Amino acid sequence: MSSLVPLDPSLPPFLQPYLPRDVSDSSFPFILLTWAQSLDSRISLEPGVQTIISSKQTKTMTHYIRTQFSGILIGIGTFLADDPGLNCRYGNANSIRPIIVDPHFRSREKLKTSRLVRQVNEKTGLVPIILIDENLKDSVCSLGDFLKGTVQLEFLPTDNSGRFNWTRLFQRVRSIGIGSVMVEGGGSIINNLLLSKRENGEPIIDAIVVTIGPRFLGAKGTEVSPLHSVELKDRKWWAGDCGDAVFAGRVA
Amino acid sequence: MSSLVPLDPSLPPFLQPYLPRDVSDSSFPFILLTWAQSLDSRISLEPGVQTIISSKQTKTMTHYIRTQFSGILIGIGTFLADDPGLNCRYGNANSIRPIIVDPHFRSREKLKTSRLVRQVNEKTGLVPIILIDENLKDSVCSLGDFLKGTVQLEFLPTDNSGRFNWTRLFQRVRSIGIGSVMVEGGGSIINNLLLSKRENGEPIIDAIVVTIGPRFLGAKGTEVSPLHSVELKDRKWWAGDCGDAVFAGRVA
Repeated sequence: MSSLVPLDPSLPPFLQPYLPRDVSDSSFPFILLTWAQSLDSRISLEPGVQTIISSKQTKTMTHYIRTQFSGILIGIGTFLADDPGLNCRYGNANSIRPIIVDPHFRSREKLKTSRLVRQVNEKTGLVPIILIDENLKDSVCSLGDFLKGTVQLEFLPTDNSGRFNWTRLFQRVRSIGIGSVMVEGGGSIINNLLLSKRENGEPIIDAIVVTIGPRFLGAKGTEVSPLHSVELKDRKWWAGDCGDAVFAGRVA
Repeated sequence: MSSLVPLDPSLPPFLQPYLPRDVSDSSFPFILLTWAQSLDSRISLEPGVQTIISSKQTKTMTHYIRTQFSGILIGIGTFLADDPGLNCRYGNANSIRPIIVDPHFRSREKLKTSRLVRQVNEKTGLVPIILIDENLKDSVCSLGDFLKGTVQLEFLPTDNSGRFNWTRLFQRVRSIGIGSVMVEGGGSIINNLLLSKRENGEPIIDAIVVTIGPRFLGAKGTEVSPLHSVELKDRKWWAGDCGDAVFAGRVA
């Protein structure tokens, strides 16, 4: 585990308006959508290929942001491609709960040897939550208890195409005590959440923070681009001497 | 013609390293590749649909940059979609030469009623240069002289797929006295030039300046993303209070 470079002191005030607020009166957690992309809005060189885009300075920023959240959510594709730690290495570590969106429980085999489960066993990470299609409940529960104590399985309904409803998903996350969630990808989750609305018409996500690493990853890469246009508000930029820029804003 | 807002005084020093240098000893002009894109690296909502992405502040920047160049080059798709003025409205105007990459002379009909030709007639713009496949020379020259004096036709060889060779194209541009060229798009020209090399292996382009308008135009838009990855150097960012960011750099 490599150590982090110091946090740029201009970042906490820049980020502050986009970090969790009190949600005690809400059935939703505070949701931040965040990712690192190239100038050509790619988050990897090819689907399934882990690609380092941001600099050391903005990597520290990501770990700083994680200190402010109680949950960190990714899709199954990112879990399988990256075997991520999803931990928090800035300040007091181990305080963020990994959440994997995995309706078909494709993580099952890989979990056994995953960093997430290893961190639980080594007491350097919290027990990850795996969100699974409730239709799989009986078959999953009969698989035995090889992961017992190292993962928390949560079962939710899916729609006809086998996907979760985001409103229900985040309400479930909130109901199990997680008041703020940082969503870190991958591409299809980002593109989907940029367009998703709550039942009252408000955006599902409260804020977005995008790190741009100035290179082109090329047309074969996994891209961030929602199906239709999205306007943003409260738009701000930060640029350090690291070469990266960071954009923060909200869906208008 | 709307007037421009004042130029942000921090922009000229930011841009200075990416503006033309002396090329009197070179067979190439100085070439800047520049465009405005959304966060999802789209330059229009759909192919052929003119889309305003940058703010008034960065629009002024574009006209300021134009004062520093002797030529401004676009592809035929951009000409047909936008009917652009390609003039320079900052300081002393009318000093930049429009150049259209148009191997099949698809601009022919539209030129008659174009802003470019109107500006020539009104003495508010320089005569545009149209770069045409030399195989069309005889048929084009027999079309009569309806555009005489309002356009300059230049004929160049094309390859088997009907495209120009960038090295030859820019050498021709240089040979007719244009020492610096700003390339403003569209998408296929940008994606192509990001990857193009001179015969000595150096990049064709000397610098890139990208304005990012913080919105998502969506997956149907015309995108900037070269066929494979491109690393950059001399990377710098500017962010004003307009919401836009500007990236400047060079191909590594």
